Amino acid sequence: MAEQSRISLNQITTPVLCLEEALDGCARHRIPSIGIWRHKVHEIGLAASARMVKDSGIHVSSLCRGGMFPAPTKTARQARLEDNYRAVDEAAALGADSLVLVLGAADGVTLSDGRQMAEDGIAALVPYALERGVRLGLEPLHPMFAADRSVLVTLDQSLQLAAAHNSNTVGVIVDVFHVWWDPRVFLLIAQAGKRIFGFHVSDWLVPLPDTLMGRGMMGDGVIEIKPLRAAVDAAGYIGPIEVEIFNQKLWDSPPDTVLPLMVERFLSYV
Amino acid sequence: MAEQSRISLNQITTPVLCLEEALDGCARHRIPSIGIWRHKVHEIGLAASARMVKDSGIHVSSLCRGGMFPAPTKTARQARLEDNYRAVDEAAALGADSLVLVLGAADGVTLSDGRQMAEDGIAALVPYALERGVRLGLEPLHPMFAADRSVLVTLDQSLQLAAAHNSNTVGVIVDVFHVWWDPRVFLLIAQAGKRIFGFHVSDWLVPLPDTLMGRGMMGDGVIEIKPLRAAVDAAGYIGPIEVEIFNQKLWDSPPDTVLPLMVERFLSYV
Repeated sequence: MAEQSRISLNQITTPVLCLEEALDGCARHRIPSIGIWRHKVHEIGLAASARMVKDSGIHVSSLCRGGMFPAPTKTARQARLEDNYRAVDEAAALGADSLVLVLGAADGVTLSDGRQMAEDGIAALVPYALERGVRLGLEPLHPMFAADRSVLVTLDQSLQLAAAHNSNTVGVIVDVFHVWWDPRVFLLIAQAGKRIFGFHVSDWLVPLPDTLMGRGMMGDGVIEIKPLRAAVDAAGYIGPIEVEIFNQKLWDSPPDTVLPLMVERFLSYV
Repeated sequence: MAEQSRISLNQITTPVLCLEEALDGCARHRIPSIGIWRHKVHEIGLAASARMVKDSGIHVSSLCRGGMFPAPTKTARQARLEDNYRAVDEAAALGADSLVLVLGAADGVTLSDGRQMAEDGIAALVPYALERGVRLGLEPLHPMFAADRSVLVTLDQSLQLAAAHNSNTVGVIVDVFHVWWDPRVFLLIAQAGKRIFGFHVSDWLVPLPDTLMGRGMMGDGVIEIKPLRAAVDAAGYIGPIEVEIFNQKLWDSPPDTVLPLMVERFLSYV
């Protein structure tokens, strides 16, 4: 099912590479798309990054990441909204398919308050994104991150949030690591339809080495990726598929071994 | 809201104690109920355990645990079913309010196959439980356990499984650690109504020290237990509330400090 034209390197899979090196790695390993992280853009500035991306001919599947609206004070929430405006500007300049939003949980904010702040933050960001033609992809994280990383934990919840907005502007990111456990996942992917703005793959290792840094390369864990991929295809998603792996062992490996392995596993398991 | 008459010691909170010592600890610390683990019963035999419980005057809120139906071979699945018959016999002899079923995931079984095996196993066990007047409490575990401990990961899924059976025989166990993240948790608790056969409390520590052994004492984490307790009360559950904490530090502490702490925290946070 997988074809190399669909693969995208999410930059967090090879975090040792600066943007230039990551683009070069994509070119050398025939990876046509990249998911760029903002801190890599900030290292060299937006204008230089945009030029570099354009010169490379590599497609930008996403910019990671905005969101993180929940915060205990109004001042802090306003600062986060301002940072999201900058993220939208960056996504527009880079020509990213979408800006990924992670709806971070925050210290000192209850789960229900955090969820309201996420909803309010998205609503405040939408007009700005709409004007600049930037699509916002809400990414639910695995429920084990509900306390410290994301108040958004299911596709169902993400689709409900998205439903309040234009379907060309607010959608969801389906990451197999975060949603594979959900008894309703196939139903929800079908329901998401054109609201699917991105699809991320990795694997769930057993035993899980670490909640954050324990994701595996496709094929090393227990997620049945192909049926999820088929469901996302059937829902109408035809964009790049990002390989996004937080894993210390991979991070410590030379990128020129990680990238071909990633392509090989993609072709076999996605 | 909490009153001491509702508290129950789930035996895994003080695993160093044998059944006799746990019952004695409950009596001394005015804990009126206990959730008993099967391996503690097997240490001294069922008849002796049942006599000991009866003599103690302590109420048995649950027997932990049956279930674990998913297995790669028919022989293994039959052996597990047989073990569940024994668990029902034990729950009947001990006068437990319910037998807790954990629907373990199994090596070499896909998630979808495992879910079918869980459904089939429950269906096979129900007539035996019904004849002996034993109620079966399906306990969804947190989705982070989907790969290695439970194919049942949400209240929604548990209620759907339970719905196929008599509402006096098959219900659900609501454990705050496993369900607190769910955006639909209040809706699902209300929907569960009389199907709630048990309510378990502990807390979610930040950062999570360990997926299995990292639960906290109530008040040490971020779960808003009182609203969940209020929802369970409003749904009509009037039975014991078990304190069930897997935590290495607590396990290494003297039970005679753990038990009064547990009562104190229960009265403040539940």
